[in-house]
Amino acid sequence: MKFEIASELAYEIHSPTTLLINIHALRSPGQTIIEETFNIEPYIRIEELTSIHYENRFIRLEVEEGTNLNISYKAIVDASHKIIDQRELEAVPVVALDGNVIPFLFPSRYCQSDKLSTLAYKEFGHISNVYEKVLAIVDWIYENVDYVSGSTNSQTSAYDTITERTGVCRDFAHLGIALCRALTIPARYFTGYSYKLNPPDFHACFEAYIGGQWLIFDATRLAPLNGLVKIANGRDAADASIASIFGRYTSNGITVSCRALDDNFVPFTHENAYHKAIAVNAI
Amino acid sequence: MKFEIASELAYEIHSPTTLLINIHALRSPGQTIIEETFNIEPYIRIEELTSIHYENRFIRLEVEEGTNLNISYKAIVDASHKIIDQRELEAVPVVALDGNVIPFLFPSRYCQSDKLSTLAYKEFGHISNVYEKVLAIVDWIYENVDYVSGSTNSQTSAYDTITERTGVCRDFAHLGIALCRALTIPARYFTGYSYKLNPPDFHACFEAYIGGQWLIFDATRLAPLNGLVKIANGRDAADASIASIFGRYTSNGITVSCRALDDNFVPFTHENAYHKAIAVNAI
Amino acid sequence: MKFEIASELAYEIHSPTTLLINIHALRSPGQTIIEETFNIEPYIRIEELTSIHYENRFIRLEVEEGTNLNISYKAIVDASHKIIDQRELEAVPVVALDGNVIPFLFPSRYCQSDKLSTLAYKEFGHISNVYEKVLAIVDWIYENVDYVSGSTNSQTSAYDTITERTGVCRDFAHLGIALCRALTIPARYFTGYSYKLNPPDFHACFEAYIGGQWLIFDATRLAPLNGLVKIANGRDAADASIASIFGRYTSNGITVSCRALDDNFVPFTHENAYHKAIAVNAI
Amino acid sequence: MKFEIASELAYEIHSPTTLLINIHALRSPGQTIIEETFNIEPYIRIEELTSIHYENRFIRLEVEEGTNLNISYKAIVDASHKIIDQRELEAVPVVALDGNVIPFLFPSRYCQSDKLSTLAYKEFGHISNVYEKVLAIVDWIYENVDYVSGSTNSQTSAYDTITERTGVCRDFAHLGIALCRALTIPARYFTGYSYKLNPPDFHACFEAYIGGQWLIFDATRLAPLNGLVKIANGRDAADASIASIFGRYTSNGITVSCRALDDNFVPFTHENAYHKAIAVNAI
Repeated sequence: MKFEIASELAYEIHSPTTLLINIHALRSPGQTIIEETFNIEPYIRIEELTSIHYENRFIRLEVEEGTNLNISYKAIVDASHKIIDQRELEAVPVVALDGNVIPFLFPSRYCQSDKLSTLAYKEFGHISNVYEKVLAIVDWIYENVDYVSGSTNSQTSAYDTITERTGVCRDFAHLGIALCRALTIPARYFTGYSYKLNPPDFHACFEAYIGGQWLIFDATRLAPLNGLVKIANGRDAADASIASIFGRYTSNGITVSCRALDDNFVPFTHENAYHKAIAVNAI
Repeated sequence: MKFEIASELAYEIHSPTTLLINIHALRSPGQTIIEETFNIEPYIRIEELTSIHYENRFIRLEVEEGTNLNISYKAIVDASHKIIDQRELEAVPVVALDGNVIPFLFPSRYCQSDKLSTLAYKEFGHISNVYEKVLAIVDWIYENVDYVSGSTNSQTSAYDTITERTGVCRDFAHLGIALCRALTIPARYFTGYSYKLNPPDFHACFEAYIGGQWLIFDATRLAPLNGLVKIANGRDAADASIASIFGRYTSNGITVSCRALDDNFVPFTHENAYHKAIAVNAI
Repeated sequence: MKFEIASELAYEIHSPTTLLINIHALRSPGQTIIEETFNIEPYIRIEELTSIHYENRFIRLEVEEGTNLNISYKAIVDASHKIIDQRELEAVPVVALDGNVIPFLFPSRYCQSDKLSTLAYKEFGHISNVYEKVLAIVDWIYENVDYVSGSTNSQTSAYDTITERTGVCRDFAHLGIALCRALTIPARYFTGYSYKLNPPDFHACFEAYIGGQWLIFDATRLAPLNGLVKIANGRDAADASIASIFGRYTSNGITVSCRALDDNFVPFTHENAYHKAIAVNAI
Repeated sequence: MKFEIASELAYEIHSPTTLLINIHALRSPGQTIIEETFNIEPYIRIEELTSIHYENRFIRLEVEEGTNLNISYKAIVDASHKIIDQRELEAVPVVALDGNVIPFLFPSRYCQSDKLSTLAYKEFGHISNVYEKVLAIVDWIYENVDYVSGSTNSQTSAYDTITERTGVCRDFAHLGIALCRALTIPARYFTGYSYKLNPPDFHACFEAYIGGQWLIFDATRLAPLNGLVKIANGRDAADASIASIFGRYTSNGITVSCRALDDNFVPFTHENAYHKAIAVNAI
């Protein structure tokens, strides 16, 4: 499925500032970038960083005090999604996990799985099938946490959300990840562009490692799971911020869009796809 | 400097259990393993995992219920340490940081630097030299936090320690890392064997990235900085646990030793080495 | 119902120390003290304090460094309990609450009801009858929180317990209070002697203000509700500690007992008393 | 000194709602109300509550859905202040404290003194004079916490502020109280009208019990200490909210004023009054 994605970030820069911008679609076997343009106004030399730690494409730029910075990105991306019969999926025991998956078992800044293990076992421990366990987690979050724009901030973590019961997509994702890890299911943060998200914005959800692959889950139910274009994965939002800014600045707004270029888009959600799991950007 | 290190871990295993054991000395340009032996009783097939994420050597093993497990490791290691005149050291701005260092700017499970930035700027922001800034952080921790065995647990984080003012080496390290990152100084967790640590145990401290290299700091002042043999680095203890155990078990004790094999050991500490910084396992 | 209660506290005192001891049975219209003795060894002048703030009888004593202090209390108490048909009980709206009940609507040190309101409304908001709402709260706590001796400490609060899901009687009481207050139901902490508590100890539970009276609830289900002899009420454990000690000391143990002096004790619990509520020390 | 104080609160009421309003000047031996008017528009019957728990005058009113409520208060108050030579002040040991003062030694919702004792002893334990100890606390808060309007909310507590280092008058007061109690100095919350506060608003600060009287301290340094008219005392803001509202509503703004009616007002602050302490509303 082809998507045309675009985003624009505007900042007023009040001191010499370095920005790490993470808005490019990821290049991966399951996601082909057909064309892309990245523009900075005024013109500033940029640098693309690739980390061995996580899947992402950071752009780094250095900006002078007094700059009115405008960053825009546009791309046409062919994002594959793989539909799997969930009845064939089994948990991968720790002993069989690939070494690169193991870090996603451990707690991270916003996903304090070590503090949630008793709760997770009490709520979800009785479900034997791993895929159904993760589905039960996302259903629980959907039913018990209110999606309220502006209710949380960049310091809010899963430990807060489990009690405060309000949040935005980022908080829903962190809570899902923390509960999975508390049950020894590897889970990682996902940021991306999302088709049919309303209002349009960057989106966050999470992937759980089941049956040897990363499957996508979204406890917000705000968008179809096959309408996602991946920007980055990470342990949590600390690894995959849209923008990390070292300096003083004012944000002048963000615009995001994601359009399907094919006519035959059939939305896939956990609600309409009984027994079916989905891996994004997978082949 | 050559060290003979050894450790022994004993567990009673009450359910089918997978263990990730992280007690091997790291292989690195600055640390040569002259000989090492690793034994499991009863005999169980083990597997060595190398992660692209962090510097460490995890051993994974799967153990049956009812096992009385004994894990022992012994090695002779030649650990180099590089002494640097701190007056030549300068902060590396974010724009010049290597991509693999950048993740160590971000908050992690036990090092919530995002919550400590106002405090860090108020306490240490006035110090212009980056090395002296980190030294001021470790001096502050030494003076303001009591080292009390058993006062904290595996959930204790820098955010707790900054207020509770008690902890063990792990907590001292986490607080140092969090304060550095809050000031945009990359910092990472360090675990290792430590010569002259009393009582003998695994040790934790931290490294800060200054002048293009990772320098070692230890706010506990419990051991000389040139008596360290590195096991692992990570963002914090979540990445570098001595043992991550998936299953039910009882611990039957840990013994650790670290002996210098050369006669000419001259202890290096920040207190006795004015103007001198030190990088462990560096050449 | 007559009970013979007794308790003994022993301390080694390492500095000049003031103790506030709160182990006397409360005098109230519903609880008559038939006889009581209070002994301190070595002999020290004591003083009984009555607070206008809360219902309790604090004993204050000042002890010299080096004292081996032994405090013992023994009493025969006639404790009335009033059984009420819960179908007649209605919520008292804030506008009709007595001024002295209103403080028990507000959050306190260990009962952060202000942080739990969304959660409380989501879990219990749909239950219209106020008595059934509180019963649902204590059932939820009983089912979702594990009673584990030694799992918590004097700093543990309802905000911790709602997530950590382990605790002792004090924590069960704090969580019950916090959830009631979050739903605008006045609730207060209760400490006392408890018949058939095993192992014998001081007990804590809570009272909710329903239908114009304080009814007793105990989410631990560890003892019959008509076997309670009241020591004190307060907003939470900060108001009703067994002992508040200002100085350095070592505790040498606590022994507590509570014996029914009548033969016809019929245990009352929420499980065996359908449609029945109970007010302790009430007439 | 005579002050003319006034305040006005406006609310849109969206459901049947009960309000507890705490804006009346307190009647006390040291504070005489010469005249006062209290108006509600539209006219609603009100009730004045006096609590035995705390010093305050709550007004309770019940309002129908759809009301545009306007509450206004105006008074002329003669507020005495007593200036004391601090060199004559001594700490009152726990053994000599009045029973009604003792509750102000214990932790409360927003003043978790039990979590701050190590920190408090490390920072202030070396100061032997109790008055100077409290002055050191307020100086420390003034120097280490930034006053930032809107930086905190109704859930923010002293435990947050000690680390986050930003807050408003309420947070400065809570932190002062918590640090005093951690050092066994009774301390209570104070709300009132404040002359020369800019911008005009209700003000919060705290009182510490020293030398047998409640002395006033204000770590914000925003207003003279002899320009305060007391509304209420309490353990913390949970006891002394300006408005506690049970129902759904929108706030349409608050206006507050405080004018000195005498010409000879000489501002008293800790900075300009060396060796002098002050008790507000005292004779």
